[in-house]
Amino acid sequence: MNSADRLRETEKFLHAKIPLTRAMEVQVENYDAGQLTLSAPLAANHNHLGTAFGGSLAALAMLAGYALLWLELGDRDAHVVISESTLKFRRPVQNILRAICRAPVATALAQFKAEFAARGKARLQLEVVIENEGEVAVEFRGTYVARR
Amino acid sequence: MNSADRLRETEKFLHAKIPLTRAMEVQVENYDAGQLTLSAPLAANHNHLGTAFGGSLAALAMLAGYALLWLELGDRDAHVVISESTLKFRRPVQNILRAICRAPVATALAQFKAEFAARGKARLQLEVVIENEGEVAVEFRGTYVARR
Repeated sequence: MNSADRLRETEKFLHAKIPLTRAMEVQVENYDAGQLTLSAPLAANHNHLGTAFGGSLAALAMLAGYALLWLELGDRDAHVVISESTLKFRRPVQNILRAICRAPVATALAQFKAEFAARGKARLQLEVVIENEGEVAVEFRGTYVARR
Repeated sequence: MNSADRLRETEKFLHAKIPLTRAMEVQVENYDAGQLTLSAPLAANHNHLGTAFGGSLAALAMLAGYALLWLELGDRDAHVVISESTLKFRRPVQNILRAICRAPVATALAQFKAEFAARGKARLQLEVVIENEGEVAVEFRGTYVARR
């Protein structure tokens, strides 16, 4: 399966299995050069002030980490859950919500995959950024646990 | 306006101004004895494993803090935003999502209101818990900033 197909398949999986991602109109935009990008339109995700709702930002950032792990593990029997997260809201997001998860350094990712393969369980911390007009608006850090 | 009316008005405000709260089917259940309770059905908020989606849990916990501050401030010109949050996911939530925000101690709340009245800006940390069958499933801590 080529890369574009994998992104579409991941988006279809999210929409089919997690109804809130349909309501948010989440799109899996891109996964290239070690960066996964999810987006969601402001119209479906604004708050009472007309900027992005914090709950939508939290959900989109969390999903970016999930999506990166699913794509990296390529194992539909892997149950990935989040065990903790922190969010810092630096400034409002005034347009499309776009969450970028940068893959961890190759050794960390390789160790995560090796542990998962050997023990059926592994843990990884991921960072996600949401920008607004070229500036960091939201910083997310999440600890994910994969189990088979 | 009596208490039940205020809860309904807050729920209508959320649904009107934050579309994701409609998709989540958020209800403002109760605000009594210093505890505010929001709920949302699992059907609209499940994940790929059939338990509550972490993004929905994050959004509901965050909203519980907002709703408590709106009700306490009683000032529709107050702009309340969240500046940071932490979440710990202890166990899955397998049924209705119910987030409980306990009002801070009276002195902290009074100080927050006095600061807001005097300076038009105040900051407060709130804790929210989401339970599953009587056990703590999710712990949320958020720092909120109110501005006029």
